[in-house]
Amino acid sequence: MKKDKSNTGWKNKLHEIIYEADTPMGKWFDIILIVIILFSVLLIMLESVKNIDAEYHKTLLTLEWVVTIFFTIEYFARIICIKKPTKYIFSFYGIIDFLSTIPLYLSYILAGSQVLLAVRAFRLLRVFRILKLVQFLGEASQLKSALKASRAKITVFLFAVLILSVMLGTLMYIIEGDEAGFTSIPTSIYWTIVTLTTVGYGDIAPITPQGQLIATIIMLLGYGIIAVPTGIVTVEFGKRSKKASGDESVEHFVHVNTQACPTCAKEGHRDDATHCYNCGSLLNE
Amino acid sequence: MKKDKSNTGWKNKLHEIIYEADTPMGKWFDIILIVIILFSVLLIMLESVKNIDAEYHKTLLTLEWVVTIFFTIEYFARIICIKKPTKYIFSFYGIIDFLSTIPLYLSYILAGSQVLLAVRAFRLLRVFRILKLVQFLGEASQLKSALKASRAKITVFLFAVLILSVMLGTLMYIIEGDEAGFTSIPTSIYWTIVTLTTVGYGDIAPITPQGQLIATIIMLLGYGIIAVPTGIVTVEFGKRSKKASGDESVEHFVHVNTQACPTCAKEGHRDDATHCYNCGSLLNE
Amino acid sequence: MKKDKSNTGWKNKLHEIIYEADTPMGKWFDIILIVIILFSVLLIMLESVKNIDAEYHKTLLTLEWVVTIFFTIEYFARIICIKKPTKYIFSFYGIIDFLSTIPLYLSYILAGSQVLLAVRAFRLLRVFRILKLVQFLGEASQLKSALKASRAKITVFLFAVLILSVMLGTLMYIIEGDEAGFTSIPTSIYWTIVTLTTVGYGDIAPITPQGQLIATIIMLLGYGIIAVPTGIVTVEFGKRSKKASGDESVEHFVHVNTQACPTCAKEGHRDDATHCYNCGSLLNE
Amino acid sequence: MKKDKSNTGWKNKLHEIIYEADTPMGKWFDIILIVIILFSVLLIMLESVKNIDAEYHKTLLTLEWVVTIFFTIEYFARIICIKKPTKYIFSFYGIIDFLSTIPLYLSYILAGSQVLLAVRAFRLLRVFRILKLVQFLGEASQLKSALKASRAKITVFLFAVLILSVMLGTLMYIIEGDEAGFTSIPTSIYWTIVTLTTVGYGDIAPITPQGQLIATIIMLLGYGIIAVPTGIVTVEFGKRSKKASGDESVEHFVHVNTQACPTCAKEGHRDDATHCYNCGSLLNE
Repeated sequence: MKKDKSNTGWKNKLHEIIYEADTPMGKWFDIILIVIILFSVLLIMLESVKNIDAEYHKTLLTLEWVVTIFFTIEYFARIICIKKPTKYIFSFYGIIDFLSTIPLYLSYILAGSQVLLAVRAFRLLRVFRILKLVQFLGEASQLKSALKASRAKITVFLFAVLILSVMLGTLMYIIEGDEAGFTSIPTSIYWTIVTLTTVGYGDIAPITPQGQLIATIIMLLGYGIIAVPTGIVTVEFGKRSKKASGDESVEHFVHVNTQACPTCAKEGHRDDATHCYNCGSLLNE
Repeated sequence: MKKDKSNTGWKNKLHEIIYEADTPMGKWFDIILIVIILFSVLLIMLESVKNIDAEYHKTLLTLEWVVTIFFTIEYFARIICIKKPTKYIFSFYGIIDFLSTIPLYLSYILAGSQVLLAVRAFRLLRVFRILKLVQFLGEASQLKSALKASRAKITVFLFAVLILSVMLGTLMYIIEGDEAGFTSIPTSIYWTIVTLTTVGYGDIAPITPQGQLIATIIMLLGYGIIAVPTGIVTVEFGKRSKKASGDESVEHFVHVNTQACPTCAKEGHRDDATHCYNCGSLLNE
Repeated sequence: MKKDKSNTGWKNKLHEIIYEADTPMGKWFDIILIVIILFSVLLIMLESVKNIDAEYHKTLLTLEWVVTIFFTIEYFARIICIKKPTKYIFSFYGIIDFLSTIPLYLSYILAGSQVLLAVRAFRLLRVFRILKLVQFLGEASQLKSALKASRAKITVFLFAVLILSVMLGTLMYIIEGDEAGFTSIPTSIYWTIVTLTTVGYGDIAPITPQGQLIATIIMLLGYGIIAVPTGIVTVEFGKRSKKASGDESVEHFVHVNTQACPTCAKEGHRDDATHCYNCGSLLNE
Repeated sequence: MKKDKSNTGWKNKLHEIIYEADTPMGKWFDIILIVIILFSVLLIMLESVKNIDAEYHKTLLTLEWVVTIFFTIEYFARIICIKKPTKYIFSFYGIIDFLSTIPLYLSYILAGSQVLLAVRAFRLLRVFRILKLVQFLGEASQLKSALKASRAKITVFLFAVLILSVMLGTLMYIIEGDEAGFTSIPTSIYWTIVTLTTVGYGDIAPITPQGQLIATIIMLLGYGIIAVPTGIVTVEFGKRSKKASGDESVEHFVHVNTQACPTCAKEGHRDDATHCYNCGSLLNE
């Protein structure tokens, strides 16, 4: 079903390498990409450590240029080998990829644009694509479906927690006041959530007996209601686990089709599909 | 079944808008009310931030007056369109509504009455009424019933935790004393709960080896016994989930009648009810 | 079956009031006792707050004497009305009762004996006896049996946590050293448990990159392995809940026989028992 | 099946005592060894406390020599009585045993080698061998198998948590900057994990409103997603518990064969085995 024009030929091949992972080349490309992304994130981390940056500034900058050039080539390759480039450019990953590539170029025009480098950490999300290659996918998709099923209940729960925090935070602002660090209602709400989630920094802490009493109640509340999300998720996992135990193989060895449409980049096609379920264009074999 | 006197007519209509949510107007009123409540809470928050208040004091005061006037009108409308106003005035929501409305008026008579503004945060509880309109209700009522069923067990648990905290707090007061911040038994108990719930502010921390040993035991205890409320709630959720799975539709699409009695404001009537189950007076159609 | 000698008669009656709770008098005695114990604990708390003690020292001392005299009378009454006083005197409660009574007397002989007052907090354990009177008992005994069944697993878990803490604590001592507050191995182990249980005071915190890396691992470990006790207890609750659901009444309305043997003070007799199952002596009717 | 040469005779006996635990002598050896290991760990702890070391330096050093000599003898005995000593020497325990023995000898040659003493804490792992003797084994192996089954899911979860921490940590570094203590991206990631796991030291804490907002989100996230590992492990425990309940005896009284191959030190032989399943050599009777 392949179009035989040589021009589309190498584009299709490039598309298979960059966007898919069912050919050896495609797998290798994904793995190399992840390694470079991890390396680029490590670079940014090292640059942010003052005394390392002071000593090795030149080396780090050179390596930064290497990474940036690789990302630039990758970005254009992705645009070239897809039939509708705008689909990629304005997709979530397209924007992240763009923002990860430009900071070094921008830094010669705009001061402070180095801050954009941090966007690169979001490229780490591509790691989840690699997961598709390994047997962890079954587990991941099971986790995901359990969390999805619990979403409504957890939303209600978070909602109740937030309203509670606003009410208790306001109360603490009135009781404690400035001396103890409860300088405004937003700060008090922040403190309430720090306490309710049992994080407890201690940068702000109640000093009046009434404040400590209410703090105690908030803590016990937080200690108790953590049971709610836990209970919800556990029950959902339990359901999934029961279903799966009748057909164990399904759970662990999910077959994954990593083909992506060369036109619109949609994934999740059937193994025997010849056309994209989304835009109808021909798929690569 | 409607009384045809024109006077009661517009009162009934107003009642339907303000107290109920099954007409488009009623729904819109509820949504607008929630938006204004959220806005009024945001106003109080901004006023509590010193440098924002210093700069925009006049704007904030004007907006405060707008909100107060809206709340005043709403409050009187609620009283007018109900047949037994005292039922509303002395209800939980009636008192909250009243206290949320008066602070600005009071501030011209009494100094410090601004503190009452914080009561307004409790109006956020009306948000839960909005939930009735959406499909989250099923989830919320399921959570509620599970927590209700666990109540007795959790009370016993909290009771045991409190007695334990008093005993361990007293012990720590004797061992550590003033230097480490354990200045009195109530403070020591406060510290024990901070530790047991794994909040751990660090404003007070043991410094003697014996104190640190007992602190270690308290932490491990707290780390372990969090299993108890979690276990209780999880089991209750599990039960509910099993029941519901036989009749999935019941769980998620609970039909909700939002009619409220025009006389006594009770809710929860049957769809085919013509009289209030509480006071026997006629319901609006 | 009562012995009719008048001497034993009032002793039996007193025994019924003090040790049992199935007569109205017995119930009242238990409730009054708990109120006085709660009051005595409150007294000790107030005494420990410096500025309250400074102002109301005389009042507090008088009330302390009232409580002490009540406790003294109660202690002797308990000894008189039991047939084998040593069984009570050397029982757990007997020792607690004795230690709760003597501090004020001792304070005239020995300095610093006031510290013993704190023992009184342990008298709060009598509250659990009151629980026998109410419907919470079913819940409490269910919790207790679930925790008992999980005991072996939780012991293994705590054991592993302790060994892990010793190993990681030693490691952190070597890495961080004195500057960061890791002054000795015991202190390092204390810090490890503070971190592992997610308490996190912050009085000691790693400052070197390697130390922070290991701290991160300890935190993620602690965050993850809390699942273990929770899982154990949840499964036990689940088992109990399933058994109980077949016979709901058993769970919630456990019949409790509060008779105590007048000779050896053992509890837990059958309703139709005429003799103590432990020592064989006659029970009060 | 025993080889009758007297030379191998005492070696076999020694092997049975040191490596196995099904003879009274073997049990006693294991118990004494654990006591000495615990004592040696206690010694290192005491040495690390400055004022204890200052006062009792000589006593501690003497005891240290006693322990070292015992460990030396044990180490050589282990080598002598096994047929292939290299199997032991390069095994995990062999290396730990060696490193636990040499520090005192080394301290006369190399300064600072005392640090190696801390390795001795790892000898505590031998405690788990003692567990084989007691009925806790059943529980331990059940815990272990449940954790093993959850491994894949928990790996995916930890992976997601780490990526999330890198992204959020980078974000916080940009928002907060140096003043609040977010001096570099690695430090920010460290703070993110401290917050996400609800440890919350408070050595670093956000001070800008935006930073506090994101911190709040991180906390609620951490508070919520702890449900994931808990749910996974609970479901696994539940499965195991259900299987076991049909055959309760299996769970609690696991028969343990503590024989170890005299040639390659492998454990886990069948009771009726005469040859090692690993290297095929004869087992002691």
